[in-house]
Order: sequence, then structure tokens, then C-alpha cells
Amino acid sequence: MRTQVAIIGAGPSGLLLSQLLNRAGIETVVLERQSRDYVLSRIRAGVLEQGAVDLLTRAGVGARMAREGQPHTGCYLTHDQQMIRIDFDNACAAKVMVYGQTEVTRDLYDAQDALGAQHIHGVENVALHDLDGQTPHVTYDLDGQSHRLDCDFIAGCDGFHGVSRKSIPETVRREYEKVYPFGWLGVLSETPPLHEELIYANHPRGFALASMRNPMLSRYYIQVPLSDNVEDWSDDAFWEELKARLPEDVAQGLVTGPSIEKSIAPLRSFVSEPMRYGALFLCGDAAHIVPPTGAKGLNLAASDVHYLSEGLIAQYSAGDSSGLEAYSEKALARVWQAMRFSWSVTTMMHHFPEHGAYDRQMQRVELMQLATNPIAQRLFAENYTGLPY
Amino acid sequence: MRTQVAIIGAGPSGLLLSQLLNRAGIETVVLERQSRDYVLSRIRAGVLEQGAVDLLTRAGVGARMAREGQPHTGCYLTHDQQMIRIDFDNACAAKVMVYGQTEVTRDLYDAQDALGAQHIHGVENVALHDLDGQTPHVTYDLDGQSHRLDCDFIAGCDGFHGVSRKSIPETVRREYEKVYPFGWLGVLSETPPLHEELIYANHPRGFALASMRNPMLSRYYIQVPLSDNVEDWSDDAFWEELKARLPEDVAQGLVTGPSIEKSIAPLRSFVSEPMRYGALFLCGDAAHIVPPTGAKGLNLAASDVHYLSEGLIAQYSAGDSSGLEAYSEKALARVWQAMRFSWSVTTMMHHFPEHGAYDRQMQRVELMQLATNPIAQRLFAENYTGLPY
Repeated sequence: MRTQVAIIGAGPSGLLLSQLLNRAGIETVVLERQSRDYVLSRIRAGVLEQGAVDLLTRAGVGARMAREGQPHTGCYLTHDQQMIRIDFDNACAAKVMVYGQTEVTRDLYDAQDALGAQHIHGVENVALHDLDGQTPHVTYDLDGQSHRLDCDFIAGCDGFHGVSRKSIPETVRREYEKVYPFGWLGVLSETPPLHEELIYANHPRGFALASMRNPMLSRYYIQVPLSDNVEDWSDDAFWEELKARLPEDVAQGLVTGPSIEKSIAPLRSFVSEPMRYGALFLCGDAAHIVPPTGAKGLNLAASDVHYLSEGLIAQYSAGDSSGLEAYSEKALARVWQAMRFSWSVTTMMHHFPEHGAYDRQMQRVELMQLATNPIAQRLFAENYTGLPY
Repeated sequence: MRTQVAIIGAGPSGLLLSQLLNRAGIETVVLERQSRDYVLSRIRAGVLEQGAVDLLTRAGVGARMAREGQPHTGCYLTHDQQMIRIDFDNACAAKVMVYGQTEVTRDLYDAQDALGAQHIHGVENVALHDLDGQTPHVTYDLDGQSHRLDCDFIAGCDGFHGVSRKSIPETVRREYEKVYPFGWLGVLSETPPLHEELIYANHPRGFALASMRNPMLSRYYIQVPLSDNVEDWSDDAFWEELKARLPEDVAQGLVTGPSIEKSIAPLRSFVSEPMRYGALFLCGDAAHIVPPTGAKGLNLAASDVHYLSEGLIAQYSAGDSSGLEAYSEKALARVWQAMRFSWSVTTMMHHFPEHGAYDRQMQRVELMQLATNPIAQRLFAENYTGLPY
């Protein structure tokens, strides 16, 4: 089999890239290890930057998001009992859109089906070959049979654990990693959200986040030690701890209910450079992981896909390779700024075991600067709502 | 003996407070352990915020500073070979004044002499008494004789090692401290400065700073391990290491010469709260120490003295105690913002033994944000040139 661009992974990056390329008349085949139902069941991010919203809209998948998504023009940061609102609209005339990654993925599958784009689910033993040669191709097994997919380019959209990044020789890769000494215990519940906007809480007991997916679906997180297991946390214990970390007058309004999903995720910052190796281009989590504080994961995947799709379209439509040549550098410049933001918000909002009283004062004073200084508010808002592509 | 305000310490805080109070008709006595010559020989800070310049001018000691000081409308931050200029004037219409602390102190002594203000040098065994009672007073020895100075208020301007802060009961004090794992080796030399503006260098070999006091007096620093002794560093070794840490094309212009002062200072962030206890008010280093990165030490002393002098003048002229009652909170709010800035610049610019590759990338990316983002430049410039009093 032959295609122009082989896409490894049918998460949002792979599907969005396939969608943008197919609409531009470029042939793609998407290979995915899991079933479509499995992909659609994953609970992930929920906050889209304006740039991601615009890109999804240009890809023809903006209609339901425009109807059902919730635009947010601000968020709250708390320090113990104090609520600090960052007004994105006032600070930099920007907003974000709350719309679950699950919904984005569903919209992309529907649009891909309408275009007749090719997805192959359930593939095993995916391997990338001749990335720096003349005949780049992908081999994989499906239903016990071996297959070969020849192509011009390969897009590695298969996440942190995927095969794509690992197919770049170790001698070429530079990896940067920071592992934080805690995780997030997340709960999804079919209850009305605590507040219209997200609340990021810095509390002596630890970080908490009150988020949402829609008016009857709430998403809450609390910082927990990495040694905790999800079985240690009953729903009651979770709700009690969450309440204790939010300002009292806000916590009073919390509506609790049974969790429909509960899991613990470690927090990690990770970047692998370069993001291109010969015919292979990495997008999203395949190349970088952000801690969830600041909601940059899916948004970085979107900006990577934007740069790569522009590069591929210029290559196929005009023989112009400059976009592909600049891809790694352009994508990484934006990635690193988002890494910085996620790291700084993570550092400002969490309880670190190694922090002394002085470090905790620095968190308090950073939050006071955000509470009082319009320039600091604008810098935060610019980064939160997304730097320009 | 009796006075209205007893001032402990004849460094710039104590002299400036005495100057402002005497000009307002308030009686003061300044007690200093060292001789005037010793005080004048101390080499300290050299960069004044606009607020400090304005305050010195209002105190009647601005004339020589206006003639001989060098206004700077920007500074440089470097990352390896890259020079990043922060344009204060463009970012926030502000500037700083390069004028040595030694010169400020000299101007203050001259002005105090002209006013006939009382200074007693060479005092020993200073002790503060009845701070929370009806008869606050200071005892001290001079030339082998014991003395008692009765007063309404005591201003503790005697620095980190002075008696004033330690006279506040330990049960009342809250202390916050961060000690950095390195020091600054500083050299003063009678050579033309490397550059018109200050250069703060982040280099894999460690931090360096190229500063100056006047057109024929340069002040340079390099980060060194705390285990180094000043005897380990010949002038030649210092100049060689300094050159290696500056961008090559800039370093070529370095004019070297014999050091006329060479010393190693540890880097520390320290704050003691509250800054008032009964009749005692702390100013400057007596209450807080900043690492020198960002040049906030003398400037915080000036803003403390501003708040305290306003409070005392309102008390004596109108019986209005509100300024004195608000002193600790007002001074500390500004102190903590400067602590945050000094800490963040120190963290961004130094080589930390415990930093991994990811942390060094965060330094690089913070500097890239400052190189490219006008809002980040403005936030830096606002803090560097000084938040409003």
C-alpha cells in the first residue's frame, strides 16, 4: 500500500492532521493501535486556546464546538481564602473555550468519515523504516498479517509511549525532563460545576483544581503524593479533601456525586529535540509532555499540527520545502514557551515537599503580583489563552 | 540625654532618615558603632531606582548625584553569546541612576553636618529598652562611660548584624530565609567600564556582572562556590574567568587593571516580620537582605525610610499615628515584591549545582521570553527600575 503521509496515532493530533491534509487534497493513512471506541473513551484535556479553536474551525470541525463549548474570559487563582480573578478579556482581549478532548476527537472522527479518510485501527508491531533514506515506510501487523505502507512522509502522533520518537536514533535525540514530586488525583462527576470559571487553588494542604466539561459534567483534581493509589481514595474522602483546599465561601457551593472516572496521573515536563528526523515529523505528546497545570497539552498538539500541515501543504502544492525545514525549530520555540508557562504555574500553585517557608512566601508574592499588577496579569493571560501561532 | 527619634546606625538608611526628620524639625540622635571614615570606606551598591533618586533629592542631597551620576535607560542580560537589551525607557518610561552608595553616604554626611544633626560614632554595647512600654530608651557605652538616650521612637537602621532586630522578642518575629549555594566574588578597579550599561551574564561557567561606579571605576562580579576564598583568586585569574563568561565580542573590549578591592559575598534572601515592635521601627538590612542581583538592597532601605519618615512627620506635625501604624504592612508589601524580583533574577541567571538540563532550559526560555515579548520586558523593567512607593 502507498500513501503520501502516513500518520501514526488516531488521537486528536493524528486526526486533526489527517483532516487538514485531506481537505487540501493530500492522501493520508492513519494507523492506530487501539479501537475507535477506546480512543473515544479517553478522558483528557478540556480547555482550548483561541488558536486551537480557530484551527479546528478551519479544519471544518468547529460547528458543534461553537454550539456546545463554553467560552471563558477569565479564571481564578486562589491563595488560601483569597480569590484572584485573571480577566483574559480585559488583559489581552482573548478567551479560551471549554470543550472536552473527547468531543474534539468525536467531531474529528465524524468529519473524517464524511471525507472518506483512511484509518486503520487495531494495528500491532508498528515500525518505521528508512526515515533518512529514499523509501520511508511503515510496517505493521493487522489480524495476524504483516503489512507495508510506503509513503513520502511520516507524522508521529502516537503520544509519549509511541514508537515514533523512539525511532529517532538516540544519538540524534536530546531529551529534557523534569518529574514533579506529586501527582493529580482526578474525578469526573455528573454534577453541575462548582463555578462558571476554572479555579486553580494554592492551599497549605496542596493544590486543587475545579474544572468542568459541560454544565452537567464536572472535573476536579487534587494534588496527591506519588505514593498514593486511587483505591486509597473513596469518593467521600476525595470530596472532603477538595472542599478543604478551596476558599470556604466557594467550597460551600460544591455539589458532590458519584465519580464516573477516578485516576491518578503523575506530573512531568518532557521535551525531545529535534521534532524532525528525515521523513519523520513528531507532533504533540510524541515529542513533549507538559504538566496539566495551564492546560497546554492538547493546545501544543494543535500548534504542532498547524505548522506541520502548513509545511506539507506548501510542499505538495508548490514544491516549497521551507515550512518542513523550519518545522522543528518553529514548533519547538512555541513548545518551550508553553513548557515554561506550565512549569511556572505548576511551581507557583503546588505544595512541594522540599519547599521551606521562604519558597512558600515566593508563591504568595507571585500570586499577590498577579492580584495587583495589570502587566503581570496580561503576561499570564497571554500565555494562558495561547501565544500566537 | 533625650531626643525625639533615636536612630541606630549611620549607614545610608540611618543618615537619610535623620536628614528627612531634621529637615522637618524633628530631633534625632544617630548612634554608630564604627567611625565615620570606616562607614565611608564601605563599597556597596551602586544602582538607584527613580524613587530613591527622588527621595534623596527631596532630602536635599541630590545636587552632586544629578551632576555626577549616570542615568541608565536600559541594561543587558546575556545567554551565552546572545545579548538581550531591556529598554526601560521604552518599556515603562523609567530609568535608574548609577551612583555609588559611598557617594550617597558622603553626600548625606555633608548635608547632615550643614544641618547640625547629631551623630555619635564609636558607641559600644548598644541596647534597646522598654520598646513596648512608656519609656523607650537606648543605652550605650562611649569612651568607657555608660550613657542613656531617652526618646519617643527608635529607628533600627543597623543592618543585618545589628542589635535592633534582635531586640524584638523571638516569639514575635517571623523570619524567612533562603541561602543560595554560591557567592559573588567582586572586584573594583580603576579602569573604564566594559560597557555604558550593566551586563548581567548567564553562562554555563556561571553568572557574571559587569557594572560600574563612574567613568573610571568599574565593578565586576563572578559567581563562585561558597568554598572559594578570596586568596584563591589572583587578579589575572579573575579577569580571565570574567572574560570567559561574557559574550566574546563584548569581552574583547574589557580593560583590566589591578583590583583596588576584592571580596566574596554570600547570596541570601532574608525577611523578618513585623518591621515594627512598639516604639522600634526597622529599616533596610536590619529587617531584610536581598541577593545583589537586581540591586534592590539600598533601594529597599530608601523606601522603608520614606514610609517611616512620612509616618513620623505625620505623628509629630498632626498627631496622626496612622502612618506609623501602617508602616510594617506598607513597607513589607514593597519589600516582598522586591524579594520576589531579586529571587527570580538570581534564579534565572545563576548556575545552580542542583539544576539539571531541564532547569537550564527554563533559564534559556525565560531569557528568550524577555528577548521577544514586550509585556515580559515591561514587567522586568517596572521591577528593575522600582515599583512605586
